[in-house]
Amino acid sequence: MEPRKLFIYIACSLDGYIAKPNDDLSFLDVASKEGEDYGYAEFISTIDTVIVGRKTYDWVMKQIGEFPHAKDKESFIITRTPRPSEGNLHFYSGDLKELVDQLKSKPGKHIFCDGGAEVIQTLLKEDLVDEMIIFTMPIMVGEGTRLFKDGRPERRVNLVSTKAYDTGVVRVHYELRREARGERRKAIGER
Amino acid sequence: MEPRKLFIYIACSLDGYIAKPNDDLSFLDVASKEGEDYGYAEFISTIDTVIVGRKTYDWVMKQIGEFPHAKDKESFIITRTPRPSEGNLHFYSGDLKELVDQLKSKPGKHIFCDGGAEVIQTLLKEDLVDEMIIFTMPIMVGEGTRLFKDGRPERRVNLVSTKAYDTGVVRVHYELRREARGERRKAIGER
Repeated sequence: MEPRKLFIYIACSLDGYIAKPNDDLSFLDVASKEGEDYGYAEFISTIDTVIVGRKTYDWVMKQIGEFPHAKDKESFIITRTPRPSEGNLHFYSGDLKELVDQLKSKPGKHIFCDGGAEVIQTLLKEDLVDEMIIFTMPIMVGEGTRLFKDGRPERRVNLVSTKAYDTGVVRVHYELRREARGERRKAIGER
Repeated sequence: MEPRKLFIYIACSLDGYIAKPNDDLSFLDVASKEGEDYGYAEFISTIDTVIVGRKTYDWVMKQIGEFPHAKDKESFIITRTPRPSEGNLHFYSGDLKELVDQLKSKPGKHIFCDGGAEVIQTLLKEDLVDEMIIFTMPIMVGEGTRLFKDGRPERRVNLVSTKAYDTGVVRVHYELRREARGERRKAIGER
């Protein structure tokens, strides 16, 4: 069985922001095209578990009044304020590495971190991300919330694929962990 | 005759840095491959004028003892400290927009801004960049000097092309000004 992987699958501006100030995501409209879902339906069909930060959760609740992933996916909201679970919705205030290790130790589909920047930062710092799929919008927004915050360890990555859409969106897909395994194999082979 | 354009042509890490702390560029080694120049020779043949920031100039001088572009290109070092010119090497402490406008008003090949981040920031703020060619290295470096600093106006861009190299480098090429002209044409057409 394929091991469960943790994916970051996210859109950002050419200058590296996932939101403009005040959580303004309107720049994502530059990618709108009827019938183009940028592979989301296919991607999400490989996922059964979602992790998001509390601020992202609050934003979604404020925007649409519910947390859509929780309909059919175990959803973990990373928060400093414990709350009882509601069906598939779990409020988790423990250690993120413990959660991810525990999820990966069980059989299942892949795990999707749907933001925000703080949770992504922690996942990257703790080296818990297996693959990143980033959609770069054909726009510079100038300021806002950066996808990559300062202060992570250096990390080689492995380019899996790229795709340019006629909307000007560029998709890049990287593996973070196969590279590490490759290096380990190489190190063993060189002994 | 084709109008002179100002190009940014630069390498950065996946997480958006052009240098690690202390101007460490060693992460660019991940792209090294014998015989692969990433199109640089072809690009530089279209250039006859170079603009760089004073810190970048100092770094080059410290590393290799000369400023190679000045051999055959008019080179403008953007500095707050005026100095007399030395052959092709000009130390410019005036307004950057005036310099670029003046250069573009004269016939010639294209203009290349070879860094650093501060000059790029000013050029982007003043909307003086025509095209950007960015090479994303297959590595996250975690911290350092960002290609894009906070605090620029929002700017739509036009994707020209992408290319993935077997080294894991991804090249993206954007036009910043054709888009604007396109919008203007559209606005006129819609009247």
